[in-house]
Amino acid sequence: MKIIKDIQELKQELKLTSESIGFVPTMGALHEGHISLIKQARDENELVVVSIFVNPTQFLQGEDFSSYPSKDLADTKICELAKVDILFMPDTNTIYKKDELSVKAPQKRSYILEGFGRPGHFDGVLQIVLKLFNIVRPTNAYFGKKDAQQLSLIKQMVSDLFMDINIIECEIIRDDDGLALSSRNTYLGSDEKKLALNIVKSLRVATQEVMTGTQDIEKIKKSMEIVLKDMDIEYIEILSRDFKKLENIELKNSIILVAIRVGTTRLIDNIWI
Amino acid sequence: MKIIKDIQELKQELKLTSESIGFVPTMGALHEGHISLIKQARDENELVVVSIFVNPTQFLQGEDFSSYPSKDLADTKICELAKVDILFMPDTNTIYKKDELSVKAPQKRSYILEGFGRPGHFDGVLQIVLKLFNIVRPTNAYFGKKDAQQLSLIKQMVSDLFMDINIIECEIIRDDDGLALSSRNTYLGSDEKKLALNIVKSLRVATQEVMTGTQDIEKIKKSMEIVLKDMDIEYIEILSRDFKKLENIELKNSIILVAIRVGTTRLIDNIWI
Repeated sequence: MKIIKDIQELKQELKLTSESIGFVPTMGALHEGHISLIKQARDENELVVVSIFVNPTQFLQGEDFSSYPSKDLADTKICELAKVDILFMPDTNTIYKKDELSVKAPQKRSYILEGFGRPGHFDGVLQIVLKLFNIVRPTNAYFGKKDAQQLSLIKQMVSDLFMDINIIECEIIRDDDGLALSSRNTYLGSDEKKLALNIVKSLRVATQEVMTGTQDIEKIKKSMEIVLKDMDIEYIEILSRDFKKLENIELKNSIILVAIRVGTTRLIDNIWI
Repeated sequence: MKIIKDIQELKQELKLTSESIGFVPTMGALHEGHISLIKQARDENELVVVSIFVNPTQFLQGEDFSSYPSKDLADTKICELAKVDILFMPDTNTIYKKDELSVKAPQKRSYILEGFGRPGHFDGVLQIVLKLFNIVRPTNAYFGKKDAQQLSLIKQMVSDLFMDINIIECEIIRDDDGLALSSRNTYLGSDEKKLALNIVKSLRVATQEVMTGTQDIEKIKKSMEIVLKDMDIEYIEILSRDFKKLENIELKNSIILVAIRVGTTRLIDNIWI
């Protein structure tokens, strides 16, 4: 595995290849969720590139940018074991310059849910993904369904900007108890982890309601609220897969999304119906 | 010459080529200025693509978007004679969708001069150029020095977003009297055209001062103001080639820029020192 920090060196390395490139952009602190993305990229492409870059522009003032878990050594080992060809770890000052062009995410769909409490967050996400896509020029790029709104906005960016990249939607990976894997799970104490399991429980209750024929969105949300009572709910929402309002559940076109604060840790999860 | 309106058809056409692609994006109403760009693209590339698209997002409310000169038949003929391989003429509704991602030009450098009177203008310019670059994926893209600020911002965008495109800066083409060619010159009556010649005259006076050793920017601007007295000056400015303030003239790193209103027509010109 080659570890590359320099943008021009990476471009030079990739320029000569006519092979399909699978790309997994990450912020490091790799867990089984990331590994499943890398494995899928490995299966489906001749060349696999993983990037690790904790992107400052997607963190808001007061968020956990400076304390975001960094595990470069462990991450490098994980990538090696997963047979990554190139691990790209650029420095912030090579990626960003002063007074530069920026990207504004589509207004309607980026200022709800994750974007409501974090205005400008998705502008930063799209800006870094656009840069990384232009550097790596992948055939296929892999994103987890856990960050469903991010995934939807990235798909839209690729479409709006006419980029030739396949965005591959990958399943959420959960631990044995059902908790969706997240780098931020390391912030949770053991009591908090137990509490956090109510999130997946609420999604299961919702799924069961849908399976038994309920289409009424408000009714399903109420049932989830009961499971999540006493918890610090930020949102429970049911939307179409491109993040528009739904009248009723539409099978194969709905996502049920939850954001909860457990202690000081913010957790999100969702299920695609 | 192939005339293509459909984005996917153009992509398909260009996908198979391993040849160098020279790209000249235009808003139509082609004149000798455009033709010189096309000729240079023809000389330097195996395949030449010209686009004609009057981009709505770079016009502000009340500007001449709906009356912008359209000469599709003449333009097509001109491209044919200039041995263009592909003329790309997309419809607006294939280029833009509802609630889409947008681009914000670098704030400091896009809200002076042309951007001062036209806030948001360069956001629209960069948005369309980014889209067109992703559609055409050119090796070399050709822009005139006449729109110097636009040229500088496009160069910055390509750098900020790590795009593999050479931006080729092309000389300003003038008519026999020295007036810089512009599609908007067709708006000028003959008396107005005579008045407009003071613009190039002021640039010549400035050049002469520099040639005879003057480095004092304010002094040069004063001399230009004398030539342009009684005219509706929007700005006279002398900046570095990346549009930053200069203490004094720096040879091979200065641009002298003028914007003037003649009747209802706004004209710009500049000279690179």
